[in-house]
Parts: sequence; C-alpha cells; structure tokens
Amino acid sequence: MGNKVISEAVVKRLPRYYRYLEHLEQEGVTKVSSGSLARLLGVTASQVRQDFCNFGGFGQHGYGYDVSYLKGKLAEILGLDRQYDMIIIGAGNIGRALAGYKSFAAEGFKVRALFDIEVREPRIGDIPVYNIEKLSDYVKENGCDIAVIATQKSVASDVANQLVALGVKSLWNFAPIDLEVPDDVSVENIAMSESLYVLSYRMKNKNKN
Amino acid sequence: MGNKVISEAVVKRLPRYYRYLEHLEQEGVTKVSSGSLARLLGVTASQVRQDFCNFGGFGQHGYGYDVSYLKGKLAEILGLDRQYDMIIIGAGNIGRALAGYKSFAAEGFKVRALFDIEVREPRIGDIPVYNIEKLSDYVKENGCDIAVIATQKSVASDVANQLVALGVKSLWNFAPIDLEVPDDVSVENIAMSESLYVLSYRMKNKNKN
Repeated sequence: MGNKVISEAVVKRLPRYYRYLEHLEQEGVTKVSSGSLARLLGVTASQVRQDFCNFGGFGQHGYGYDVSYLKGKLAEILGLDRQYDMIIIGAGNIGRALAGYKSFAAEGFKVRALFDIEVREPRIGDIPVYNIEKLSDYVKENGCDIAVIATQKSVASDVANQLVALGVKSLWNFAPIDLEVPDDVSVENIAMSESLYVLSYRMKNKNKN
Repeated sequence: MGNKVISEAVVKRLPRYYRYLEHLEQEGVTKVSSGSLARLLGVTASQVRQDFCNFGGFGQHGYGYDVSYLKGKLAEILGLDRQYDMIIIGAGNIGRALAGYKSFAAEGFKVRALFDIEVREPRIGDIPVYNIEKLSDYVKENGCDIAVIATQKSVASDVANQLVALGVKSLWNFAPIDLEVPDDVSVENIAMSESLYVLSYRMKNKNKN
C-alpha cells in the first residue's frame, strides 16, 4: 500500500464496510462473503474485492472474510486504533448536541472543550466551555486533532482560518459553507441543509422520476 | 424535463448551486458565469451548463446567468417554494438540536412535534414533545411531509417501518444504520460517524497520499 493513492470513492466506502462488520459482529456472524458485503453497500462483489485489494486483500478466495479480523484491519486502516482530541467551536444547538453525543467518545473521538463568543455555562456535561478568546492558548497548550466548526455560517471561515493558523489539520464542518484550506488540512462537511433539499427535490419530482 | 430522469450526481449538486447563488445574492452579485459556478463546485463549466440543460437551461450563452433568476428557478426545482411539516422522532441530543435549529424553519422546513419514549418536558422551545405512543394518531390527524429519525440505532429500523406504514414518504435519518424502505419512500442519511472516520483515515494516511 505504501505509496498507492486510494481513490476518494474507496475512502468513502471504508467507514460503511466498518459499520456493517460491526453490525455483523454484534449479530454473532463470524464469516462474510464479498457478495454479502456488496449487497449491503449496493456495489458489486468484484468492487468489494477490488477495494480490499488496495490494502493487500484480507481473505482467501472462496472462503469468505473473517468478520472480526476484517473489522480489526479496517479499524487500523481508518485510524480507529487510537484516540483523537476534539474541540468544538460554537456552543449552540449543534455544538451542544455533539458534546453530549456519547458514541463518539466510545469510538475514540473525545471532545475536550467547547468555545463560544459567549460562555453561558462553564460546562456542558463534563466538558468545559471557554471564551473563544482562549482558543489560541488552549490549542497551543493542549493540541487538537480535530476541530468541529459548529458556528454561524457568517463566522465559519474566520474560525477555520484561525484553526488552520494554529496548526489544526482536521476540520469537521457543520456550517453550510465550503471552507478554503491548505492542502495539508482535511475538511469533512456535514451538509444538513443540502440533504434536506435533496428530500424536498424528491418529493417535488416523485411523479417524474 | 417531464419524463427525463435526472442522475443522482446532478440532484446532489443542485443544493450546492442553490447555496452558492444564495451567497452571491447576499454579496450583491447579480450575474454569474458557468465558469465561476464551476470553480466553486469543483466541476467543469461544461458540467454546469449540462446540469442546467437538464432543466431547460437558464441563460443565454456568453451572457452569464442572472443570479436572482437562477436562484428562484433552482428553488422551484428543489421544491423550496412551499412549506414542509416535519416531525422528529427521538428527543435526545440530536433531536433537540434539530428542533432548536432556526434556519430550517426559515427555509420552509417546520418542525411541528417531537416524539420520544420518555417525555421529560412538554415542549422544546415552541415545539410540543409527545410520547411515541401518540405517533400514529398524530400522523393520521396532522400528516407529515418529512420525519427525522434521531433515535438510538437499535430502534431506528422499527421507527422507520412504523413511519412508512403511516404513509410518511420522506425520512431524514441521523441513526448510523441503512434503512430499508419501499421504492416510493425517500431516505437521506446524515452519516456523522462515517464522516469522522474519513477524517481519522486521512490523518493516519496523510503521509502516504
């Protein structure tokens, strides 16, 4: 794998494979075929095998994949074998909800602090809330693997620029705006409005498609 | 357009065009070229023109598009020219956050009620919270354009099945699970964990790609 560039489409499928394997493991399933995984993801069995080939393959042809082994391998590939320190900028509805979401912490993504222009309460659950003026000092002292942008759209770009200047390399963006960042910074967008518009589009066009 | 089937990729781009046009309009920009739109979306100018051709085109070649006109046309195509009644199932962190999110209401997506197995408070802001046992009666009486699934993963499928049986045709799913629904029901997923895993993948593989 070393220098091989993995396509965007494959990278996007990896978390879904992982999620299915987690589900299968919980159901007590120990072996799974590329055909079954393919059906779950809505791709072809050959696509599944090809995806796994990018990482050196994980099974013997005809025997299926060992669920626990494959899940472990995918966890490793996805970087889920370590912890990540997260901070959330914006303690509004979304920021607060993410801070309270237990399953991220269980998966290794630990929210360490929230920042807002107005500190209405010192903690949300166990997580301290600081004034945004403390962001720079906080990141310099504690570091930050992933910063969540849960601010108003109007300030999201400025916040992102500040985080990038502080050396944060991963942004998880909930603001409805495309952030411009240097090549060495990763951004993942949760585009809620866009997703709602797709629903309204389908409602409007149901009879046509 | 009538019977033409619009590809999934085009449908996913439409909300982004709309968002850019909204932004341009706010900035006081009145004309935009397919080239500018293309740069914003990271596609080619010819792709933009082709996308719009699906809907009969919206401009004269070489003159650029009128921002307000194009935005209005896209709003119409996306079904944003009407209101949608939404209900949220699950009054946990995400359900509460969505209920409090003002911008959806401003865009015509009105949250009318929340449902949970446990009603801890009668209202969240202006929105009533009901016991999930009342879901069926509520939907029969009031109808529902879009149901938001913000429950635990373990009950998300059951909730979806119940909503489908009640005739709800659009599900906005925040649970980390793929819902199986009949062909005439639309589902849009907000896959938060998967998006986080893409970030962790990129962190782990930064040096390789």
